[in-house]
Amino acid sequence: MKAEIISIGNELTSGSVPNTNATFIAGHLFSSGIEVSGMLTVGDESAAIIEALRNVSPSVSFVVVTGGLGPTVDDITTRAAAEALRRKLTLNHQARQALEEFLNRIGRPLDPHNLRQAYLPVGAAVIPNPIGTACGFSLARGRTVFFFLPGVPREMTRMFEESVMPQIRRERPDNTMVRAAVLKIFGRTESYCDQALHDLIKQEQEIAFAFLPHYPEITIKLTIRGTDEKYLKKKLKTVERKTGRILGNIIFGHDEETLEMVVGNLLRKAGATLAVAESCTGGLITHRITNVPGSSEYLERTLIVYGNRAKKELMEMPASLLAKHGAVSKEAADHMARAVRRLSKSTIGLAVTGIAGPGGGTPEKPVGTVFIALAHKRRVTTHRHQFHGDREQIKHITSQYALDYLRRLLMSGDFAG
Amino acid sequence: MKAEIISIGNELTSGSVPNTNATFIAGHLFSSGIEVSGMLTVGDESAAIIEALRNVSPSVSFVVVTGGLGPTVDDITTRAAAEALRRKLTLNHQARQALEEFLNRIGRPLDPHNLRQAYLPVGAAVIPNPIGTACGFSLARGRTVFFFLPGVPREMTRMFEESVMPQIRRERPDNTMVRAAVLKIFGRTESYCDQALHDLIKQEQEIAFAFLPHYPEITIKLTIRGTDEKYLKKKLKTVERKTGRILGNIIFGHDEETLEMVVGNLLRKAGATLAVAESCTGGLITHRITNVPGSSEYLERTLIVYGNRAKKELMEMPASLLAKHGAVSKEAADHMARAVRRLSKSTIGLAVTGIAGPGGGTPEKPVGTVFIALAHKRRVTTHRHQFHGDREQIKHITSQYALDYLRRLLMSGDFAG
Repeated sequence: MKAEIISIGNELTSGSVPNTNATFIAGHLFSSGIEVSGMLTVGDESAAIIEALRNVSPSVSFVVVTGGLGPTVDDITTRAAAEALRRKLTLNHQARQALEEFLNRIGRPLDPHNLRQAYLPVGAAVIPNPIGTACGFSLARGRTVFFFLPGVPREMTRMFEESVMPQIRRERPDNTMVRAAVLKIFGRTESYCDQALHDLIKQEQEIAFAFLPHYPEITIKLTIRGTDEKYLKKKLKTVERKTGRILGNIIFGHDEETLEMVVGNLLRKAGATLAVAESCTGGLITHRITNVPGSSEYLERTLIVYGNRAKKELMEMPASLLAKHGAVSKEAADHMARAVRRLSKSTIGLAVTGIAGPGGGTPEKPVGTVFIALAHKRRVTTHRHQFHGDREQIKHITSQYALDYLRRLLMSGDFAG
Repeated sequence: MKAEIISIGNELTSGSVPNTNATFIAGHLFSSGIEVSGMLTVGDESAAIIEALRNVSPSVSFVVVTGGLGPTVDDITTRAAAEALRRKLTLNHQARQALEEFLNRIGRPLDPHNLRQAYLPVGAAVIPNPIGTACGFSLARGRTVFFFLPGVPREMTRMFEESVMPQIRRERPDNTMVRAAVLKIFGRTESYCDQALHDLIKQEQEIAFAFLPHYPEITIKLTIRGTDEKYLKKKLKTVERKTGRILGNIIFGHDEETLEMVVGNLLRKAGATLAVAESCTGGLITHRITNVPGSSEYLERTLIVYGNRAKKELMEMPASLLAKHGAVSKEAADHMARAVRRLSKSTIGLAVTGIAGPGGGTPEKPVGTVFIALAHKRRVTTHRHQFHGDREQIKHITSQYALDYLRRLLMSGDFAG
């Protein structure tokens, strides 16, 4: 069973915005065992839209089309759809009613701008939009069903999940499904993983291995297709375990887990608390940690000591240390990790200091020089790194290493409160 | 002059990763006046790749193909390209030499895995990859040139900019170009902007207006096409000014400017310094501020007071205030903004406190309740908001309002050191 995704919008063909809609739709279709045979993007141009719709092969069961249903002048998808599928446009009473109810709810009058959105091709079935004025619609041509949805991601995703996917699931004739497991890696290259898993990949022909570099992480996705869900899950679990044994602790997480979730779970399990002192990362480490619900259980405070005065006042850093070693030094990182831990009475203190650039580098400490320190009751350990890239990349890779060192410390159990 | 973009990879058709490559390439082509007539994505399947390549219309001048040139088993693009364009594969000596030099540089031996990557279709011109093992290549069929690049974004972008774009620019026969201006809006809906600009859009037929919701911001992109660069720029400037007069200060920035850049420039111009106390945003405000190079000139410190003890110890917040009003209250926000300003001796103190969820809400203060306070010498102003969405969305919209209130304060000039 095949599907196609057609995305419409000059903002896409001019590279102004990424096509997150197509990725979202593909993910949902894939998980339901439906093969996405093509994803096509064209601009807001009638001829191009009509051609794209007419070119869909009759062997495709579902076509999900997004974009161009809005109230503005560049929204022409509905008209093009009517022409491509040879239908007339007519005022759709269900669409008009939904529009009026929505505008009423948010206290706005119905204006002609909006009323345009209620004209749909004859025979179209309305796909309700609970959070916007652009309703969607579906239309069949032969054995192909076309779904038209607005391009605003918040509206599209909701309509797709609430109306389109249930219909697709109902119309699927067979029970083929795809089950996938995701392993997340940090600290080794794609080529390393591929070579390490070479024999396993050959041996496990039922499982498809995909390596997705997702800098600075690598994702390995294992997928299996079939009809017996119990068997698929069991097989997947077995191969996932074998992969885990080969790659060891460079695997930091599974499926939707982020590094910060893993770290959070380890902190919670250990009953440990964390305090952070950030310099060059400017809050990014703590932003990531606090993206996890419940993080207030183990994180109580972070000090972003961007300037030297802040380092002195908040970290009790001696002027002599700064004068002798500088704010970007092993000594400063050590001091910060110990100070933030002690002052906050936390189990573990994490500190980073470095030069994110583009200015501030010296021959001895070029842009990208970073020190990451972890302190607990028994000792403080500091790592020096030389990263490359622009400011945001250096901030990001620093936060990644900091969280990964913390993960490894927590996994080792080798720390004391 | 038309171009097409073909992206190859199961990670794309299964929705595992967004197609950032296609967006990047489209942006570059668009700016050079080349129309992207289609962007197609297919999986790692020989037949689909061959069909996609063969279906390219002879009227298309350039096709940029990415993905599937790596060393792993699922990389089959080169073989499919050879078949689609009816060429034999042969060991390309230039490719082999580049590969050896690269591996030599990073201290790794040449293994058969990698050597596969040096087999290219007969007649292919090598596109060097300065930072990876997968070299690219170009091939012509009739008047269409196909460029094949690896899918790893870091490698692809560099090769595209250094080798592909210069060749495309050389082969362009005419001088048509596109110039664009971008206005960034926060605080009003797309529909509001569209209606406010209705007459201007009708009046300025040469300029294409595109509204791109980029939650929580809206981007308005004005584009003009022609051959006289001076005229295009002047016309664009005029219409941009007219748009600015109509929309006023809901426009916070232009082109590549981010809200945090704008705030940074205003702080620098005013000679003002900033200190931040974050609670529910968990560092995100400061992460955004410190993404701007040179932000250490105006930001000296941030205190992330996630727990109540941190609020008491670092913000000198009286236990009575916490007991009476709670940590999420106007009173707490006021106190935090004044305290962080005073303790850091900064011009302006910014504080946020709120409930990011999913837990922690009450009937009086549900999830999404947020207080944002700005303190300077003369006064402290606090805004209460009720946001909706998940934890990350609430963090993000809070950081956006906080930075926008700061922008408006700085623009008003109504503050004292």
